Amino acid sequence: MNNKKAVGKRSILFSRPPVIIGAGSVAGEKEGQGPFGKYFDIIEKDPLFGSGTWEEAESRMQHMSAQIALRKAGLEPKEVRYLVAGDLLGQLIATSFGIMNFNIPMFGVYGACSTMGESLGIGSILVDGGYADYVVALTSSHFASAEKQFRYPLAYGSQRPYSATWTVTGSGAVVLASSEARWRRKETGYVEVVGTTTGIITDYGIKDSMNMGACMAPAAADVVLNNFKDLGVGPDYYDRIVTGDLGTIGQRILIDMMKGYGYDIEQQHFDCGTQIYYNKEQNTNAGGSGCGCSAITLCGYIMDKMRKNEWKRVLFIPTGALLSTVSFNEGNSIPGIAHGVILEAVSGRETEEKRG
Amino acid sequence: MNNKKAVGKRSILFSRPPVIIGAGSVAGEKEGQGPFGKYFDIIEKDPLFGSGTWEEAESRMQHMSAQIALRKAGLEPKEVRYLVAGDLLGQLIATSFGIMNFNIPMFGVYGACSTMGESLGIGSILVDGGYADYVVALTSSHFASAEKQFRYPLAYGSQRPYSATWTVTGSGAVVLASSEARWRRKETGYVEVVGTTTGIITDYGIKDSMNMGACMAPAAADVVLNNFKDLGVGPDYYDRIVTGDLGTIGQRILIDMMKGYGYDIEQQHFDCGTQIYYNKEQNTNAGGSGCGCSAITLCGYIMDKMRKNEWKRVLFIPTGALLSTVSFNEGNSIPGIAHGVILEAVSGRETEEKRG
Repeated sequence: MNNKKAVGKRSILFSRPPVIIGAGSVAGEKEGQGPFGKYFDIIEKDPLFGSGTWEEAESRMQHMSAQIALRKAGLEPKEVRYLVAGDLLGQLIATSFGIMNFNIPMFGVYGACSTMGESLGIGSILVDGGYADYVVALTSSHFASAEKQFRYPLAYGSQRPYSATWTVTGSGAVVLASSEARWRRKETGYVEVVGTTTGIITDYGIKDSMNMGACMAPAAADVVLNNFKDLGVGPDYYDRIVTGDLGTIGQRILIDMMKGYGYDIEQQHFDCGTQIYYNKEQNTNAGGSGCGCSAITLCGYIMDKMRKNEWKRVLFIPTGALLSTVSFNEGNSIPGIAHGVILEAVSGRETEEKRG
Repeated sequence: MNNKKAVGKRSILFSRPPVIIGAGSVAGEKEGQGPFGKYFDIIEKDPLFGSGTWEEAESRMQHMSAQIALRKAGLEPKEVRYLVAGDLLGQLIATSFGIMNFNIPMFGVYGACSTMGESLGIGSILVDGGYADYVVALTSSHFASAEKQFRYPLAYGSQRPYSATWTVTGSGAVVLASSEARWRRKETGYVEVVGTTTGIITDYGIKDSMNMGACMAPAAADVVLNNFKDLGVGPDYYDRIVTGDLGTIGQRILIDMMKGYGYDIEQQHFDCGTQIYYNKEQNTNAGGSGCGCSAITLCGYIMDKMRKNEWKRVLFIPTGALLSTVSFNEGNSIPGIAHGVILEAVSGRETEEKRG
């Protein structure tokens, strides 16, 4: 077989794991007031980010987060070979208008809120495969642009059930570098993308757009299960199994489903959506959601934990509910998808040993 | 540098070029009545494809084209490691619902009508890089679902200016195989994907949603120019330089722009959109458009020409106009993107020589 890097049915283990050499996070005020506030690079009080529309605000966030990631990586846009990005808005307009000025060859991706996993996965393949030295993977979501597109204009003041989540206003961007490019740098501790586990479209027939966690939990369970099977490991293999935005209800479903498959992941499981707000105090009901939720949690909080070697190995699984107002209004269910990425922290001492 | 397969600023030349071992095309009645009618696998007279909605019709087309491609390749869905696909509809619902039952790990992509180039490009990278033996790349568009989403409901009977194009009802799917997997097969002539040239987002400020060719021509010109520069070649290198859906006006702009860069591509240039209908007789004004336009032209007509060795080397560049009704109504321009893929026909005699 040619596919030597393919492991089991759904996973890849990279022979030359790409390294995250820069991560940028831009968050809104509400996200800044949540538990991870101190980990974000920028917290912006103006929800319009100085622009005239919610969509442009989101584009500006993407531009900012990419700029921060590039600055931390010490790179100019022209040194980046590919940009892999997407967002929740129709035709990915937050991305198109946000990153246009960088003039970086671009792969647009759509996986609903699983986008950060998909862009990191494809970006890592481009680097590991020898197609690029540097790739930027990024995504965003904005509370107001998402509500406008998927539910009701904010001015309606619609009531939100307890199962509803709050779309995170935020954008996260990472710069991936080839292992060769990494040695030209001075860092002593860093985070590698060592593999991926790619999801399928799952559909358990859920039709409640105010309970997205239930739509996504089966997709997440499918990726966790296949990751364990492909790698021949169990929950203990990871310090944390991180999902994107299941929220309190979806999280419960995932843990129960995994128990049904014979795995107890309760101790390792961490859901960005459940954790990103003080749900009770901030009235965010079941938690946060949106592409930006897992993206800024990764670029802020998770990267910090890993750089400090507090979390050594993380299975990062952004989760997406493929909600379409068109198919939804036609009576269809809301399918889910999830994209898993395996992250490993390499300490300063280990770096020196590897550098040899 | 690690990126040995990277050529110039934007291109890749594969060291183990993936092979197209199956291609399926499904078209609507109008497309069947056009010049390429006899090359399509299925021409369906019912625009709803037996379903109840335009969106579901499009999903059924994707399912059919993938099935045909898999059957021609002699593969079961479970043997396919990745599916790379997308469409024009919000949240890629034609794809999600169309391919769900295959249970193939999936990367959702969005590049407007450039999707077939993007999915072929990423799919080829997955195969060449050793991550998969078999990948399916596919896309679709449907006249009625696209008009409904982007312009006016059909029942309005809106007038169409001469610069407008007609969204193709069709879906095209290809199965890519690794060069190793290829030798297990009996074919003696085939088509290889030998490389890619990836586009950037271009924006010349065009704001006319009824003149998409003008939005896309600069994106196409950018890819053609960079392909020539990266490979150190000129128009003569190719038997055909195929664009997706510029239509008669966009085609003229592309040829003029290329003249401005010092290249005369008039003899080699072939635009699927300009060619897919008898524009005068079929009232399609500037031609065909949509993801399906280049996809079914590739899977039907172009594959036929290449398998017969009439066209030996083709630069295939699906073109996309990132039209969003939201950003458009907010006064924004319509940016464009294009994704180039280099195709080469290998004859029976050459196959025997390669097999050795």
